[in-house]
Amino acid sequence: MKVASLKHRRDGKLVVVSDDLAWYADAGHIVPTLQAALDDWDRIAPALANLATDLEHEAIPRERFHEHDAASPLPRAYQWADGSAYVNHVALVRQARGAEIPDSFWHDPLMYQGGSDCFLGPRDAIPLADEDWGCDLEAEVVVVTGDVPLGASREEALAAVRLVGLTNDVSLRNLIPGELAKGFGFFQSKPASAFSPVFVTPDSLGDWWRDGKLHRRLCVDLNGQPFGRADAGQDMTFDFGTLIAHAARTRALGAGAIIGSGTVSNRDADGGPGKPVADGGVGYSCLAELRMVETIAGGAAVTPFLRRGDRVRIWAEDDRHHPIFGAIEQVVE
Amino acid sequence: MKVASLKHRRDGKLVVVSDDLAWYADAGHIVPTLQAALDDWDRIAPALANLATDLEHEAIPRERFHEHDAASPLPRAYQWADGSAYVNHVALVRQARGAEIPDSFWHDPLMYQGGSDCFLGPRDAIPLADEDWGCDLEAEVVVVTGDVPLGASREEALAAVRLVGLTNDVSLRNLIPGELAKGFGFFQSKPASAFSPVFVTPDSLGDWWRDGKLHRRLCVDLNGQPFGRADAGQDMTFDFGTLIAHAARTRALGAGAIIGSGTVSNRDADGGPGKPVADGGVGYSCLAELRMVETIAGGAAVTPFLRRGDRVRIWAEDDRHHPIFGAIEQVVE
Repeated sequence: MKVASLKHRRDGKLVVVSDDLAWYADAGHIVPTLQAALDDWDRIAPALANLATDLEHEAIPRERFHEHDAASPLPRAYQWADGSAYVNHVALVRQARGAEIPDSFWHDPLMYQGGSDCFLGPRDAIPLADEDWGCDLEAEVVVVTGDVPLGASREEALAAVRLVGLTNDVSLRNLIPGELAKGFGFFQSKPASAFSPVFVTPDSLGDWWRDGKLHRRLCVDLNGQPFGRADAGQDMTFDFGTLIAHAARTRALGAGAIIGSGTVSNRDADGGPGKPVADGGVGYSCLAELRMVETIAGGAAVTPFLRRGDRVRIWAEDDRHHPIFGAIEQVVE
Repeated sequence: MKVASLKHRRDGKLVVVSDDLAWYADAGHIVPTLQAALDDWDRIAPALANLATDLEHEAIPRERFHEHDAASPLPRAYQWADGSAYVNHVALVRQARGAEIPDSFWHDPLMYQGGSDCFLGPRDAIPLADEDWGCDLEAEVVVVTGDVPLGASREEALAAVRLVGLTNDVSLRNLIPGELAKGFGFFQSKPASAFSPVFVTPDSLGDWWRDGKLHRRLCVDLNGQPFGRADAGQDMTFDFGTLIAHAARTRALGAGAIIGSGTVSNRDADGGPGKPVADGGVGYSCLAELRMVETIAGGAAVTPFLRRGDRVRIWAEDDRHHPIFGAIEQVVE
């Protein structure tokens, strides 16, 4: 089952979307919003699944689905916690500044508490007041959970995964050092994120969802050029079960909590940092990683951060090259 | 006007509470939840204010208000951002470990992104799996905002304050050093917070709410003994307008955002760290501050963190010693 929220008031209007993303059926007679569905998932999900089946069979009224009419599936959420599960990415950050990566980073997940009150839509512009803030994209996989009890095990956490999707976790890189020096973590450096137009239930992903990971390439284009083609199922040190359990170690998580993977990042086949797509590599899921590779190779970053007018596109494909979750496509303004 | 949410499903049932906290009137015929009221405040607030007036005049059906039936006014929220506006508190932390406080701390607010999906109720137990985590209370003032545009000025931010209340921002002190060393800020060290049973509109606070600060003593009792009596209007380096504007510098805030003051802390009359209440001082709003004062005075902290069975009570009084916001009262379990 695929779900989306058409732009409508603060929480959107829940619709079920056909597998090919061409059509939708209004779910308003079942439940008005995705959050309301997640609040009562065991009762609501079967009715939504029936609607999805009827939609595929063209047995009910349907409308054309346009991704630009979609808000993020949860236009606002009660919880957005973002891990950094591709430790390769973290290791490169450290390597670029000549620092060792602590051994603990390989067995204790990094996670930051994100803000979740005003997400951007998947086709909304990224508002950027100052180019000097160093605006970067971060292409990631996310899951949405049901209720997760305090102290849940990895297995309990995995069983609570309700939906899978993608995010562009916008970061203001040049504000990060100052905030980290203050010791209170990210705040101004993490403005509003955007999510894929469509979220998908794990069962609908079949074999692409296994071991708590999404086994598909995460595609990133920058200004129409291939920038990232990393496999989200590779080099993910901490699967989503581990990330969710980490988040729930000292507190319960409420239904509708969004947990992120952190920037997807693959090592090169030779074990070194990834090469650009143009050089036969899988590229990058954020500009900072390319800049780190440039720093390691040549002593300084060459590629600039995002400027006004730059266009970012993030998606994942099925075997016929159709987007699974639709596409995040944003222009910096 | 005073509002509360009686425990009911995930978001509570909105009620208007009499000024003396003895009675309530159900607001369900106007709007079901406080979040729904905040989403449409300009239209809803006048109707709630009329209900409050009718309640004071005993012109409508009323029920006895029991604080232990109340959830936190927003049982879950889309945004919880907590400042550290009493820089005296931060200076003591640094002093206790022999470090200077950076000059920037006096003009650039500290703020961390809190989790907001599952708040504790004001009389709920504090679940503590491990006493070695160093469980601490933090008594703070909070405000709830309407929509705040990205880049709002201090004045625009202050005008967006809809409600004022209190929180116990529970912290796990012994998990903080490890998390801060990882550089991603607080996460597991900040479990669920609890809020006062009642939130109050700024206009109902009269002169107690001015210059973006609450000018009342914040009372804290620990196991029935006076522990803190600090004046929340004193030594607050950053008022709520400044804190909200800081939070909104790179992103908009959605209606219902909760912004915290950080632990309230007063210097002693002689300019030094505050003295215990038993010694004629105003005491402390968290155990960590007392432990820092002990460390500065005697080389080591003496007072332990919270243990199972410990009872915390947090409130603020009017001139007749009646609680303004009701009382947070929690036992560690």
